[in-house]
Amino acid sequence: MKVDGRHTRTLWLEPDGWAVGTIDQRQLPHRFVTVRLETLADAAEAIRSMLVRGAPLIGATAAYGVCLALRADASDRGLATACETLAATRPTAINLRWALGEMTAAVGRLPVECRVAAAYARAAAIADEDVAINAAIGRHGRALIEDIARRKGGAPVQILTHCNAGWLATVDWGTATAPIYQAHDAGVPLHVWVDETRPRNQGASLTAWELSQHGVPCTLIADNTGGHLMQHGLVDLAIVGTDRVTAQGDVCNKIGTYLKALAAHDNGVPFYVALPSPTIDFAVVDGIREIPIEERGAEEVTLMTGATADGRIETVRIAPAGVAAANYGFDVTPARLVTGLITERGVLPATREGLAAAFPERAGLRAAE
Amino acid sequence: MKVDGRHTRTLWLEPDGWAVGTIDQRQLPHRFVTVRLETLADAAEAIRSMLVRGAPLIGATAAYGVCLALRADASDRGLATACETLAATRPTAINLRWALGEMTAAVGRLPVECRVAAAYARAAAIADEDVAINAAIGRHGRALIEDIARRKGGAPVQILTHCNAGWLATVDWGTATAPIYQAHDAGVPLHVWVDETRPRNQGASLTAWELSQHGVPCTLIADNTGGHLMQHGLVDLAIVGTDRVTAQGDVCNKIGTYLKALAAHDNGVPFYVALPSPTIDFAVVDGIREIPIEERGAEEVTLMTGATADGRIETVRIAPAGVAAANYGFDVTPARLVTGLITERGVLPATREGLAAAFPERAGLRAAE
Repeated sequence: MKVDGRHTRTLWLEPDGWAVGTIDQRQLPHRFVTVRLETLADAAEAIRSMLVRGAPLIGATAAYGVCLALRADASDRGLATACETLAATRPTAINLRWALGEMTAAVGRLPVECRVAAAYARAAAIADEDVAINAAIGRHGRALIEDIARRKGGAPVQILTHCNAGWLATVDWGTATAPIYQAHDAGVPLHVWVDETRPRNQGASLTAWELSQHGVPCTLIADNTGGHLMQHGLVDLAIVGTDRVTAQGDVCNKIGTYLKALAAHDNGVPFYVALPSPTIDFAVVDGIREIPIEERGAEEVTLMTGATADGRIETVRIAPAGVAAANYGFDVTPARLVTGLITERGVLPATREGLAAAFPERAGLRAAE
Repeated sequence: MKVDGRHTRTLWLEPDGWAVGTIDQRQLPHRFVTVRLETLADAAEAIRSMLVRGAPLIGATAAYGVCLALRADASDRGLATACETLAATRPTAINLRWALGEMTAAVGRLPVECRVAAAYARAAAIADEDVAINAAIGRHGRALIEDIARRKGGAPVQILTHCNAGWLATVDWGTATAPIYQAHDAGVPLHVWVDETRPRNQGASLTAWELSQHGVPCTLIADNTGGHLMQHGLVDLAIVGTDRVTAQGDVCNKIGTYLKALAAHDNGVPFYVALPSPTIDFAVVDGIREIPIEERGAEEVTLMTGATADGRIETVRIAPAGVAAANYGFDVTPARLVTGLITERGVLPATREGLAAAFPERAGLRAAE
């Protein structure tokens, strides 16, 4: 999507043809800083420290991380170390493991001297596939927005989103934002309520930033606000992303998603989840019981970083000194609260049957295990 | 409750016997600063700027605001101006108008020269009544906690609360915290999950501060977290306060309360609301339709104030420059999601019949209107 009017992807090859460029998303929205990744350690640290984040972008970054690792050591042992190191950076992200599996499949049986070139080719394809998948998600989701726009007769379609399942979470388009960008670009009047998304504030610092960079009307709200808006008819639909969808359609996404889904259900507001199909984990059925939820450091709750009026970046403590804080990264929204899953193959019911019918080659794989 | 080990109320007469002392709650948790109010304007500004906040404390402060006003002008016109000025400071707070009504009733028919003394007497009584009411709320609510403690056989009772309905919101004890303080003081093992409560962070800056000052075990969480905790059996009950309860038991409270009530309902977690009876507004029935919701400045969403590592207080912008933000202060939780109302007259069902049976003198008044 656009940054300062110029089309930009979130991940690219540097002019030297081997190093990988990306955006340091931790510095948004205050500074737009690009970073050069040169080693396995660079890529792993970029994922672990959330310099890059978002399931699809994590997957693509991990793929390029394997490329960088193989440049230093293309042996079987080098490949295995790369995959282990990268897999350990974010335990909840299914795309990460999917991408590592793809890379291993692409290079594992090749002679050592062929692996680097093959790895770069596969990583580039993974990035391009992500763009194509998100464009397809955008087409399917855009139809939902256009349907509501027709019923509203010209009044803006009010959309709520949580966290950043935007362009910045993918290589381009975003998942939850792809329908929004496509509808907006097609002239459909719309407005987005952007959940701040504590404790890491990705809604405020990333989604509000990228939507406004692209010219999409949006308003930032505290995470507590969505229920009130829905009670008063101020939300026509919710679209969020996800880090993992189970075989029965349970949705693991940024902490707080479940609360918004409950409010949508209580007020008859359609609640959609946009996802590329690698996000579906057919090996997991009951999301609440089976998905391990990442716990992160307390300082993400107790400290806050921002820009002072005179432009300095400062970190301030917003909690009493010495008080404990807990930081669960994700929650699971049961499938019963999900109106539909917007995938590259269309809008599916969040059910075992819906997912299996759309992805028989993967659902069947599990049955055969 | 205790501050630095010493028992402290939130509102007191200064040694001169006429000025009013209080705590500048905007500076918590970083600095404990007391403030002297000398005029109607001081009192009105203290309420408007949220130097004091919390429905009962707002009511008591407004009562003393009338005293300060009458010292300057005890005429009918002076009394009317005082009430108008104070009523306009926070449109949602029912206790504010209740206290002003009480003050007018206490002094309106007296000769002008008797009004100041009578006003101070009534204001002091309003403050003492608040303490007595909260102590009674604490006794009734403590029994609920003790019941759960017996069933858990010694494991800590896990309580979730939202915003600050604590000691700092009242003259002493708090409303939602009164049962917690009383159970804790009686040796019942318990632990409190404290919602941060964006955008003003009263959970982080006030509730976590006052609970830890008093020695109550607590953990700060992002507002997004409660649903996940409830899904995993980590919350035994929720207790929140309220700014206004309607005749049918709808609960207006800090924005986000509705989302926690939905999660509690979805997971079979009891959801209690603690309130002094002046908070009940028998003139309002349907909370969602009838209660006007205060909208506050966008800067409460986009800016954050805290302490730097070297002890400076800094305000930082956490949103992109130029992005709009909306700031609704409250939401309404429908009575169907409320397990019970903890009042000074016992724990009541959140129904028209339950409230009318416990407060026949006030419910009947409305029927006669």
